[in-house]
Amino acid sequence: MTTEAAGALQDGVHVFPVRVYFEDTDAGGIVYYANYLCFAERARSEMLRHLSIESGRMVDDLSLASAVKRCSMDFVKPEKLDDLLTVETRLCGVGGASLVVDQRVLRDAKDLVRMELKLACMSLEGRPARLPADIRQRLEDFKNTGQAK
Amino acid sequence: MTTEAAGALQDGVHVFPVRVYFEDTDAGGIVYYANYLCFAERARSEMLRHLSIESGRMVDDLSLASAVKRCSMDFVKPEKLDDLLTVETRLCGVGGASLVVDQRVLRDAKDLVRMELKLACMSLEGRPARLPADIRQRLEDFKNTGQAK
Amino acid sequence: MTTEAAGALQDGVHVFPVRVYFEDTDAGGIVYYANYLCFAERARSEMLRHLSIESGRMVDDLSLASAVKRCSMDFVKPEKLDDLLTVETRLCGVGGASLVVDQRVLRDAKDLVRMELKLACMSLEGRPARLPADIRQRLEDFKNTGQAK
Amino acid sequence: MTTEAAGALQDGVHVFPVRVYFEDTDAGGIVYYANYLCFAERARSEMLRHLSIESGRMVDDLSLASAVKRCSMDFVKPEKLDDLLTVETRLCGVGGASLVVDQRVLRDAKDLVRMELKLACMSLEGRPARLPADIRQRLEDFKNTGQAK
Repeated sequence: MTTEAAGALQDGVHVFPVRVYFEDTDAGGIVYYANYLCFAERARSEMLRHLSIESGRMVDDLSLASAVKRCSMDFVKPEKLDDLLTVETRLCGVGGASLVVDQRVLRDAKDLVRMELKLACMSLEGRPARLPADIRQRLEDFKNTGQAK
Repeated sequence: MTTEAAGALQDGVHVFPVRVYFEDTDAGGIVYYANYLCFAERARSEMLRHLSIESGRMVDDLSLASAVKRCSMDFVKPEKLDDLLTVETRLCGVGGASLVVDQRVLRDAKDLVRMELKLACMSLEGRPARLPADIRQRLEDFKNTGQAK
Repeated sequence: MTTEAAGALQDGVHVFPVRVYFEDTDAGGIVYYANYLCFAERARSEMLRHLSIESGRMVDDLSLASAVKRCSMDFVKPEKLDDLLTVETRLCGVGGASLVVDQRVLRDAKDLVRMELKLACMSLEGRPARLPADIRQRLEDFKNTGQAK
Repeated sequence: MTTEAAGALQDGVHVFPVRVYFEDTDAGGIVYYANYLCFAERARSEMLRHLSIESGRMVDDLSLASAVKRCSMDFVKPEKLDDLLTVETRLCGVGGASLVVDQRVLRDAKDLVRMELKLACMSLEGRPARLPADIRQRLEDFKNTGQAK
């Protein structure tokens, strides 16, 4: 599984490349603002896949899902067709039933969009649910790798 | 239910307005080609809602879903931001377990995009399934209204 | 123009219906989180169209565009396929070169998603630009209609 | 440029991996049908990037764009969240002002979706335009690599 995860884990940061295609842009010639949330979710999925956590298996094996509860976004600079971007994902908080995630979209090492999201672990009926202990441990280990530096 | 269905049924045609927003366009300044399939699916959903057929209830009450099996598209003219379009939907064929649908996207009464789709009725496990008799009857009645003209 | 604008202006609120289609949902069976930003942008476009402000004409006639600079979202409850939603849009602030907009997505008069966005007026080269006086006046009039209550 | 192109050219086929994320799926639990056109366009963009042809530069340097004129799709089997797919792209025809492209989406070496598209080269005003000779040569060379086998 881990070998198929895209991007790379480095010192508590998941670094993930995203190319801008026509589908991502709008008539203004730049990336449509909602699509940064798609880029961010791709990056979180790959970060979790590196930790052997996959959404499909969470649902099938553990009857657990995740939901974004809160999100803030700052749009610093726009991106254009054919741009090659990097999404950096960091865990800022790992709670019993929730995560706080910091995500940035960069080009040439400059921040273009900054996002902070709060995710909650849910039962399939939509009720808050605790993160399984081993999954929580893997998330904390990843978070601490970054903070130890 | 019927009163909430959008668009109008007229002589075997469902006529449905679609406004072009930024999300629908790309950096070329025109509607991104995949989005015509979204417009078409919105129109089919509303045509079916007029006939008291809703996807969510099909799944919940009858354990049936539909799937597009085949689709062809001709792109005659492009559309731009803020354009107000019309999607016309006609049933060309109603079989025991499938539908053939003709859909056109127009602006100012001129065809911009023409589509023909074949849809299949499926069990939730993905196997072909027969259309329930009353649903098939409503589809045929709608189809025949058009051909009687 | 005004007659074609969708939704309705009522006491400083623009009220706009949105139906949930398959394209809006994800494998979790609910509306994909990024798509609320699409719903919100459709609603803002129609609110502006009511005030005779259209993005395409702003670009062509005035060489002005708008950009979302900041956005926060709270996801209270999820929505599902076939749900009929309402997007409420209010202007909270009208500045010389920017707008603050409050938007809510409701079902059955209950808030499902709350958003606050800051938009900036820009030249086509991406530099901050002042809102033309007549456009700013129309925006303030709409904002004040609500606050007078 | 070439080093940044994703996927690989092999004997006249461009092979490109695509991971299925939540954004690609719908409430039926499978990839939404319009999104195969997005996957296909990403693959065509990377195939062209391998041949040093980029859409953004075509517009800026040559005032040329491309447009999909016709498209047919066969949906053989559905795909699900977390699936790792392959898009294969082959050139079937290179004309003076158009291309015919065969694209397939596979999982575990089995065809899931088959597409054939006709693309036209256009001026920025939307009129048919001839492919520049050097670009046409690179496209024919790539096509012939496959047919020589």
